[in-house]
Amino acid sequence: MARIVLGVEYCGAGFEGWQTQPHGRTVQDCLTAAVVTIAGAPLHIQCAGRTDTGVHAAVQVAHFDTEAKRPLTAWVRGVNAHLPDGVAVTWAREVGDDFHARFSARARTYRYVLHNRPVRNVLLNGRVGWFHAPLDLAAMQAGVAHVRGTHDFSSFRAAQCQAHSPVRSLMRAEVSAIGEWFVFEFEANAFLHHMIRNLVGALVHVGKGSCSPEWMAELLAQRDRRYAPPTFAPDGLYLAGVDYPDSWQLPDGGRIIAPAFMPSGF
Amino acid sequence: MARIVLGVEYCGAGFEGWQTQPHGRTVQDCLTAAVVTIAGAPLHIQCAGRTDTGVHAAVQVAHFDTEAKRPLTAWVRGVNAHLPDGVAVTWAREVGDDFHARFSARARTYRYVLHNRPVRNVLLNGRVGWFHAPLDLAAMQAGVAHVRGTHDFSSFRAAQCQAHSPVRSLMRAEVSAIGEWFVFEFEANAFLHHMIRNLVGALVHVGKGSCSPEWMAELLAQRDRRYAPPTFAPDGLYLAGVDYPDSWQLPDGGRIIAPAFMPSGF
Repeated sequence: MARIVLGVEYCGAGFEGWQTQPHGRTVQDCLTAAVVTIAGAPLHIQCAGRTDTGVHAAVQVAHFDTEAKRPLTAWVRGVNAHLPDGVAVTWAREVGDDFHARFSARARTYRYVLHNRPVRNVLLNGRVGWFHAPLDLAAMQAGVAHVRGTHDFSSFRAAQCQAHSPVRSLMRAEVSAIGEWFVFEFEANAFLHHMIRNLVGALVHVGKGSCSPEWMAELLAQRDRRYAPPTFAPDGLYLAGVDYPDSWQLPDGGRIIAPAFMPSGF
Repeated sequence: MARIVLGVEYCGAGFEGWQTQPHGRTVQDCLTAAVVTIAGAPLHIQCAGRTDTGVHAAVQVAHFDTEAKRPLTAWVRGVNAHLPDGVAVTWAREVGDDFHARFSARARTYRYVLHNRPVRNVLLNGRVGWFHAPLDLAAMQAGVAHVRGTHDFSSFRAAQCQAHSPVRSLMRAEVSAIGEWFVFEFEANAFLHHMIRNLVGALVHVGKGSCSPEWMAELLAQRDRRYAPPTFAPDGLYLAGVDYPDSWQLPDGGRIIAPAFMPSGF
């Protein structure tokens, strides 16, 4: 029996999220079907971070166990030959059976890419978020500083979130910009359901001047989802990094992978 | 009667090219329907460069005549409200009736964007070309120098091309690269059918080492399509600039518009 780890890249626009569904096209379903074709036997694939409908992965990490003996290239090129256009395996490694894509990960990094111009984005439709009115970078940077660290994030948590605790630790929470492009970057051990899209929605509220940066702290203190702005679209959200201890020697371990189309300054 | 000029951006992936078709979804059809809704009367839209199925426009220029008196914002925001996701108007101007989107243009610039890595591109599927094996930039730069200038381009002309002459003048023909990304840029008064995609196909042949840079000159001299490699995919091809005399004072006149997702170094 071998445990195989894969690096997986996907465009969420064509999928109903990562997790297998009885009815629907999910990344897990497509990837499992392709891997099973190569392995020649049923198997179960686990991932580092289950992404929602429409959310992308510049790097997702997944593992499975198999009795099949195949060269590592078969788990990349062979599997890719059986995958639809929107998903690809970028690397494969064999690891010991004490590795787990989800539980061995120390942290996940998500990036939200936003195009800020009067006309909606056409060439990257479904792949970036969009906001029409000018955004104030400095105000959003001041606002995001209030959510950095450990807080009760109830105000940014979806009603259907099943986590036991609303407390999370944002090790990194930053906003940067190049020209019309804004990137929001968040790193945490784990996130609440819709937490990043809710944070981005509130920060855009600050950026357009509707609220002061300090309002982010007030929202946190209210611990009530009803006071925060609506959830922002999934279009611009990317799983951009999964941090594993160096001892696993994974190609992307700890590295942040920008979506390949990003301007090089980010 | 007013003559209105529009800047138009579109992702070719969802369209059967620019030109209206009896059966099929074309950019001209969608744009005409949206403009007619605002104008309240039938009209005919002409463009600077009719793009093929799957070919994109970072900037297309189009004009029409109308009796309707509307503020210019109506021709941008109003029209955009009636356009599908893959196409948008970026600006509008009123011009004299001696302007013509096609005949007033001095030159067109096309860019072919190619992602060069072992795994096909997933996040920009349909929006960039892809080649799996390493490409030699210097060889392609030496190769493209042979097609710069005025030549008989019969070897790079589609069988169905209806142009009277196979002679064209490439004022600019360049290849550049940043990391895994290659950009081929061509400027001419006019192009033959499939000319750029055929040139890119031949240059990739040079880049992967199958032929020397001088082979580009040999292909030209043969004046026979059968000796050149197959037409490259439309996915990476962008109409990136239309050059009009400055006197028309158009927003994008002569400027090269990179697809918005391009690394800033290009």
